[in-house]
Amino acid sequence: MPVVTAPPDGPLVRRFRLALRAPTQTDHTADLDRLLRGLAALGLGEVQAPLCVVAALPKILRAAGFAVRATVALAPVPTLLRVEPADVPTRCLGLAVDLGSTNIVGALIDLETGEALGERSVLNPQVEHGEDILARTHLCLQPGSLERLQALAVQAINEIAAALVRAAGLALEEICCVCVAGNTTMAHFLFGLDPFHLCRAPYVPVANRFPVARAAELNIGIHPLAPVLVLPNVGSYVGGDALAGVLVSGMDTAERVSLLVDIGTNAEIVVGNREFLLVGAGSAGPGLEGGVVRHGMRAAPGAIERITIAPRTGLPSFAVIGGGAPRGICGSGLIDLMAGLFTAGLVDERGKFVLPSPSPRVAVRGDLPCFIVAEAAQTALGEEILFSQADLDNLMLSKAAMYTMLTVMTEAAGIAFDELDRFFIAGAFGAYVAADKAVTIGMVPDIPLERYRLLGNSSLEGARRVLLSSAALGRIETIGSRMTYIEMNESREFMNAFMAARFLPHTDASLFPNVRARRARG
Amino acid sequence: MPVVTAPPDGPLVRRFRLALRAPTQTDHTADLDRLLRGLAALGLGEVQAPLCVVAALPKILRAAGFAVRATVALAPVPTLLRVEPADVPTRCLGLAVDLGSTNIVGALIDLETGEALGERSVLNPQVEHGEDILARTHLCLQPGSLERLQALAVQAINEIAAALVRAAGLALEEICCVCVAGNTTMAHFLFGLDPFHLCRAPYVPVANRFPVARAAELNIGIHPLAPVLVLPNVGSYVGGDALAGVLVSGMDTAERVSLLVDIGTNAEIVVGNREFLLVGAGSAGPGLEGGVVRHGMRAAPGAIERITIAPRTGLPSFAVIGGGAPRGICGSGLIDLMAGLFTAGLVDERGKFVLPSPSPRVAVRGDLPCFIVAEAAQTALGEEILFSQADLDNLMLSKAAMYTMLTVMTEAAGIAFDELDRFFIAGAFGAYVAADKAVTIGMVPDIPLERYRLLGNSSLEGARRVLLSSAALGRIETIGSRMTYIEMNESREFMNAFMAARFLPHTDASLFPNVRARRARG
Repeated sequence: MPVVTAPPDGPLVRRFRLALRAPTQTDHTADLDRLLRGLAALGLGEVQAPLCVVAALPKILRAAGFAVRATVALAPVPTLLRVEPADVPTRCLGLAVDLGSTNIVGALIDLETGEALGERSVLNPQVEHGEDILARTHLCLQPGSLERLQALAVQAINEIAAALVRAAGLALEEICCVCVAGNTTMAHFLFGLDPFHLCRAPYVPVANRFPVARAAELNIGIHPLAPVLVLPNVGSYVGGDALAGVLVSGMDTAERVSLLVDIGTNAEIVVGNREFLLVGAGSAGPGLEGGVVRHGMRAAPGAIERITIAPRTGLPSFAVIGGGAPRGICGSGLIDLMAGLFTAGLVDERGKFVLPSPSPRVAVRGDLPCFIVAEAAQTALGEEILFSQADLDNLMLSKAAMYTMLTVMTEAAGIAFDELDRFFIAGAFGAYVAADKAVTIGMVPDIPLERYRLLGNSSLEGARRVLLSSAALGRIETIGSRMTYIEMNESREFMNAFMAARFLPHTDASLFPNVRARRARG
Repeated sequence: MPVVTAPPDGPLVRRFRLALRAPTQTDHTADLDRLLRGLAALGLGEVQAPLCVVAALPKILRAAGFAVRATVALAPVPTLLRVEPADVPTRCLGLAVDLGSTNIVGALIDLETGEALGERSVLNPQVEHGEDILARTHLCLQPGSLERLQALAVQAINEIAAALVRAAGLALEEICCVCVAGNTTMAHFLFGLDPFHLCRAPYVPVANRFPVARAAELNIGIHPLAPVLVLPNVGSYVGGDALAGVLVSGMDTAERVSLLVDIGTNAEIVVGNREFLLVGAGSAGPGLEGGVVRHGMRAAPGAIERITIAPRTGLPSFAVIGGGAPRGICGSGLIDLMAGLFTAGLVDERGKFVLPSPSPRVAVRGDLPCFIVAEAAQTALGEEILFSQADLDNLMLSKAAMYTMLTVMTEAAGIAFDELDRFFIAGAFGAYVAADKAVTIGMVPDIPLERYRLLGNSSLEGARRVLLSSAALGRIETIGSRMTYIEMNESREFMNAFMAARFLPHTDASLFPNVRARRARG
């Protein structure tokens, strides 16, 4: 039975220099046994040696004069990945992957120095089979669809890996480890596991802790033996991406209670500290990501990401991702827009356009009151970029759902919003949101703005940390095991709270004293 | 890091029945986590779950009402091989293989009951690339040859496996484990490891402890995840077959000292007890296997395996394997023949035919005195089966080499032949040899015949025991680590002893008192 000496904290894949003695007339030790003995002397315990590595040993050992460098993966069990002459100038690389349902992002890391060697993002090619992850899940009822979705996820990772090593002047074979953070469904797609029961009561994943696969098993075109580690889930609705967020926030080790929200189509909310961790997940609808808004779009070049509305004139000014003429509005822009319309008095507390409007940009299009964000001549579309009452109604539902979930979660923890030490906003979307604007529309609570922390892509960062630290992997697993899941969206209290939140900022304006003060000034 | 509870002794692959609870509204445990928790409750610790097994879980668990049987391989690390409904009438089979350079023998075993389900032997198809294993080793200098030899070994194992399951009415997929015992070179061929350094100073194998491969890695057509375990070597000249012999003999646990010899082209000799184990290996030439004798042949149908020569008439009588007309003489027949010729006084102490001969069967053929073992009309060849002075000279060298090695080994252990508690003769050849005849020609020492034990195919038996017992595998590894290798064939003492042994039975007749007595009676 293997005896594994716990190594000091460090990367999941490590390299060791070994100056072995050459065989002599009195030392016939076999090549592999000699190498493994050298590794054992470094405290590595039992190391598995795949046949393809063993077969190459005799030539490499002798060519190198028995001075070699061994690459060893520590997960799932210590395994030899490569043996090469000690002086070959290769690197030992890791690929961190944020496997998002919309975007897939990869970061290349030197596992020995921790150096960041580049980052790439591609649109998840699965989108062609459904923007919505639930649509893709249902698609898997058709034979061959799961395999297709799996192949597309792998294809995206392969594209990212190839682009990253090309840009860094390195080789794909030098990537010796992959760590993936994604939601539960995306992880199932990547591993070709049937998502059927993920969205049907009692919502049981095929796996919460995933097996560690080898790159070749998944057709990932890097070192064939490289372990592919997917961060564990807590359940159908709380994935490794959420656990990564907690890791990156550090809330799981803090004395005071914090809240973390990952805003997207599905919002995941964690409340807790080093003593407890409650997690809940619910649908805020696609509104906040721009999915149901006529001119909504992803945060990509051409998206309006920042909007202000001049209080006196009611005229907008905006910033476009990548500069140039706008094509639509992304999530952070929509929150800015709602906040601006409300603060400027163009929209009332019920979320309805004030008519007749003091702004020349409010007009009727197709029977609906609309705000003209950009004139046709200004846009890349050749038509106006509009924000209609229907769009506003959708966003009101989304922001109300979000605030309600935050309320339910903090109440479950028995804590008031203003007792929160930190309020972390995670996720690709969360990287761009302006906390003050989100407060203004009552999407998030009216607490001192300095308590808000934007974590950026905490999935990617969590995956990067796990690549560099076996302790971080252990901490992720501990976080997962400590989490208590809170059901939402079902109780009468939830519905009552939801109705109350469908105002700007809220029916109970005393909950948003600073918003009231700002609007009074406006 | 994996924590493995040492399981009680048992087979390398085991099945466990699990009556799992179905998921409920309050128990969303993932399918894999649920299964692994069930296995952990049985004391199995961390079990690796290959993706292909995980992917099949959701359907199987639900079809079986969560009452399943899990097949787990314990080596090299606990790994899930299969999950199936608890009531499916499959078996959990193991294949023991004696990977001989001439014959490859397989035995099918029910790992749960220990039941023997059949045995098959095929000629090693590598023979077409050289009868002699050294010739095959040299062939590996040519590109592609090692791959070809590997494929042939695998082909033979596949043929055996297919024939065995067909005869037993079972399925190849039910074979969940393979254990192979062979010499060091054959093990290298099977794993595609370069044998180049095995026969060149300082005689270093690529591996002594082999990695545990998966059947699919080696293209062995059974359960693709089945572990393929090859018994470890001690060095270039002492293979897993020799360790298996020691295991089967039990000499490694006995208080009194015994000797084990595996007679073949290469003879391996082990002397020892529970306190020490010396091992030596040397070439006895192909004589004893019939390789250089004109009418020598393998122990196969048509081979004369037993011969007696009537003392008065000098006429032979013989037994043929499979009955019918003879085609040649196998090793045990050759030893009988030499002993018979000597005892009947047709051959003198120097190993020369006595001329003129008292037997009508001694004649001159091609200028050489010959014994006509069978008349032309009696044989399947349509010609006489002869045993010439040249054949006799070759056998004299082989038997002298054997006796000399036995002498060197016992002297190295500081023990006299008559102090040996048991004298084990192993190997396929060893199964048929008549100990009294081998004593008569001075090939083995003149000790009480009841101390001789024929072990039969102890490689196959050792492999079978390892399949059924993880403790046996541990014992094999302990035997290997305890062995001290003794160099032979190099010293002046060796040459002197060798010269003295080139008589019948020996120049020092006092070493063979019983032979002297028998011959005097004859």
